[in-house]
Amino acid sequence: MSSLYLETKEGSSVNIKGWILSIRDQKTVLFLIVVRMREQVQLVIKDPKLIDKCSGLNVNTAIEAVGTVKRTDRVPSGFEIEVKSIKTIVTPKKRSPFDLIGKNMPGIETRLDMRSLDLRHPLNLALFKLRAYMLSSIREHLTANGFLEVNTPKIIATASEGGAALFPIMYYDKEAFLAQSPQLYKEELVMSFERVFEIGPIFRAEPSHTVRHLSEATSLDAEAAFFNNEEMMELLERTLVHVLEDLSGRSEMAIIKAPKITAITPFSRFKYGEIVDKLASTGLHIEFGDDLDSAALKAWGDRVGGFYFITEWPNKLKPFYIKPKDDKVSLSFDLMYREIELSSGGERIHDRRVLEKRIREAGLPVQGFKNHLSVYDYGMPPHAGFGVGIERLLMVIAGLKNIRDAVLYPRDIRRLTP
Amino acid sequence: MSSLYLETKEGSSVNIKGWILSIRDQKTVLFLIVVRMREQVQLVIKDPKLIDKCSGLNVNTAIEAVGTVKRTDRVPSGFEIEVKSIKTIVTPKKRSPFDLIGKNMPGIETRLDMRSLDLRHPLNLALFKLRAYMLSSIREHLTANGFLEVNTPKIIATASEGGAALFPIMYYDKEAFLAQSPQLYKEELVMSFERVFEIGPIFRAEPSHTVRHLSEATSLDAEAAFFNNEEMMELLERTLVHVLEDLSGRSEMAIIKAPKITAITPFSRFKYGEIVDKLASTGLHIEFGDDLDSAALKAWGDRVGGFYFITEWPNKLKPFYIKPKDDKVSLSFDLMYREIELSSGGERIHDRRVLEKRIREAGLPVQGFKNHLSVYDYGMPPHAGFGVGIERLLMVIAGLKNIRDAVLYPRDIRRLTP
Repeated sequence: MSSLYLETKEGSSVNIKGWILSIRDQKTVLFLIVVRMREQVQLVIKDPKLIDKCSGLNVNTAIEAVGTVKRTDRVPSGFEIEVKSIKTIVTPKKRSPFDLIGKNMPGIETRLDMRSLDLRHPLNLALFKLRAYMLSSIREHLTANGFLEVNTPKIIATASEGGAALFPIMYYDKEAFLAQSPQLYKEELVMSFERVFEIGPIFRAEPSHTVRHLSEATSLDAEAAFFNNEEMMELLERTLVHVLEDLSGRSEMAIIKAPKITAITPFSRFKYGEIVDKLASTGLHIEFGDDLDSAALKAWGDRVGGFYFITEWPNKLKPFYIKPKDDKVSLSFDLMYREIELSSGGERIHDRRVLEKRIREAGLPVQGFKNHLSVYDYGMPPHAGFGVGIERLLMVIAGLKNIRDAVLYPRDIRRLTP
Repeated sequence: MSSLYLETKEGSSVNIKGWILSIRDQKTVLFLIVVRMREQVQLVIKDPKLIDKCSGLNVNTAIEAVGTVKRTDRVPSGFEIEVKSIKTIVTPKKRSPFDLIGKNMPGIETRLDMRSLDLRHPLNLALFKLRAYMLSSIREHLTANGFLEVNTPKIIATASEGGAALFPIMYYDKEAFLAQSPQLYKEELVMSFERVFEIGPIFRAEPSHTVRHLSEATSLDAEAAFFNNEEMMELLERTLVHVLEDLSGRSEMAIIKAPKITAITPFSRFKYGEIVDKLASTGLHIEFGDDLDSAALKAWGDRVGGFYFITEWPNKLKPFYIKPKDDKVSLSFDLMYREIELSSGGERIHDRRVLEKRIREAGLPVQGFKNHLSVYDYGMPPHAGFGVGIERLLMVIAGLKNIRDAVLYPRDIRRLTP
């Protein structure tokens, strides 16, 4: 194994293993950029015999080199390695079908077809490091706020939010489904753990191929007893600001040229009805009770910019478990960034009879929720929660155009491989 | 929302929300044990009018109380709250079908049928806090060792380790499967991120109902370029020792009466062949090349105790991607605790031709691995890795008899709900 930390003090003797990202041959000196532990290291080869020996090296060759650290301003890292000996570990059989350092990356479908190689691109290294830091920052913040991380089942017997968009699975001799969210489980868990969160896969049989939908995505789900709607919005906005602050100083943000994002709490809050009214005055008519379509969200997002909440959605637009505020609107929110929906959440119904009534009104079979409903007989506390699409959030933070760039091996209606 | 930290200084005025775990009525004084943020708090009610008002309270009632902190030796926490006012938030409609503090818990199937209530048991609160700490400790240790946390797809097109035990899924109009491990993806990812790990769900259609198998489990998977077999064993044993040290001081370990476990690196290493020979001398005959059955593992586990590795398994007992050491045995290991298999791992084949040959020998269709194999043309470095069953590990650490106790909502051949 190569050691974790590379000594970068002038004159240190080092041994590195990695693969070649680029070669610059200046006849009397050969420069190799090698990727080692997700960082670029410049190797300098001056000895003519060694340069000769390197003639077989190419991009993607895995090598092991021994050399001496020289401090230099020639590279951003501030050091390079003067190579004393070098050997090949693995020689690639084929040349990369696309350039791994150029600015002209091929289209996303071509890159995804050869994703494991595409991930060697320095932009992807930076992006997926950011993704990991982002998840780590979320975990740290929610844990500090008393939330316990849990894992709920992904194979479920009943549709949790209606039957559409579910992937059916053959579970031994029974039909089952892949969970489209941990909704009902996280609600039940506030009965014991009070505050829970989960970061895990969710599955939705999205029927269309868009730049914002995946068939398998990563979801952050949080749920807490004794929180109301407003308190849950506050937790969500504080979590986002925490994450953005954590990431802001990272060198990877500069590498991927992440957009500057302003996020100051409290985020603006707009009621659904207010948006409908104001858009109507600009000539964009949405019937009260109809969903805000992409044109409406685009218009509103352009108008208000940045992060904001849309609150008090009509009851009929929200799932059965969302608590009504009155006959018309609900104690719910969507967190938006311009026109992109990042999160949905709200206060939940904790009275079994009301919940049953709402399930019936949603046209769902009460029988299918028998087990879930029975839990409410034992003193389900009031609670609230939210779900955040992790890939959507990374899209916004990294300024990505296509959600497929935010996931290692995306799944959509057309893509099941690699 | 209730505030996160409870002031516990003598005389502090506090406001708490939680649910009643037990009630002790001593006529002139009423003691309520309330669970708040997964901890027990003792409330003391002395005012006769307040005691009267509490007559409607029962186990599982959610309450809000205001009172004053009194330091006391009567309870392990060192403080109780003298209640000034109390109100009911939610009254349970039904009494719990089983005792939530008694030692006589009902059988596991009864508890699982009402799992969300069962999780209110103090033993379960402690156990799932430990589970979260354990995962957090693993993340922290692997991150400190240069491993990047990743998420790989759970919906896959091809069986990664042979076609048995896979759940088929209808993916739009195609057949697909639920991933039984992130094996091929994590191997591909060492090409870019060098060291990766994932903690996520895996799915296996286990045909039998045992105390050690789940149909949906949580797996820790790690993979690293430039590691050999021995180095990967060292990483694994160091990770385990780190986790055990992290957990050892936790109060939850005392609550669940966790067994004392000795784990000092290096763990013993026994070759498969050595075990076969030594067991033969005790009259337990295993044909070289046959798997070590439960009787053999029990005999060997009793003999050597604690954690140990079984190495150099016959090639034919290991999956196609494991690197052969010679014609007979492989560069592989299983990490055992007594007779329980906690982890499998080893060095991997990184030469495409050898890998193809092994796929063919395993009777698998090479065509199904076309995409995976193509990656090896671009300079796949040598690598090694392991997978650890998180529930198995928690079983060992917590001294659980049934793996179902280690997961919130278990899935097995008989159980798909709740």
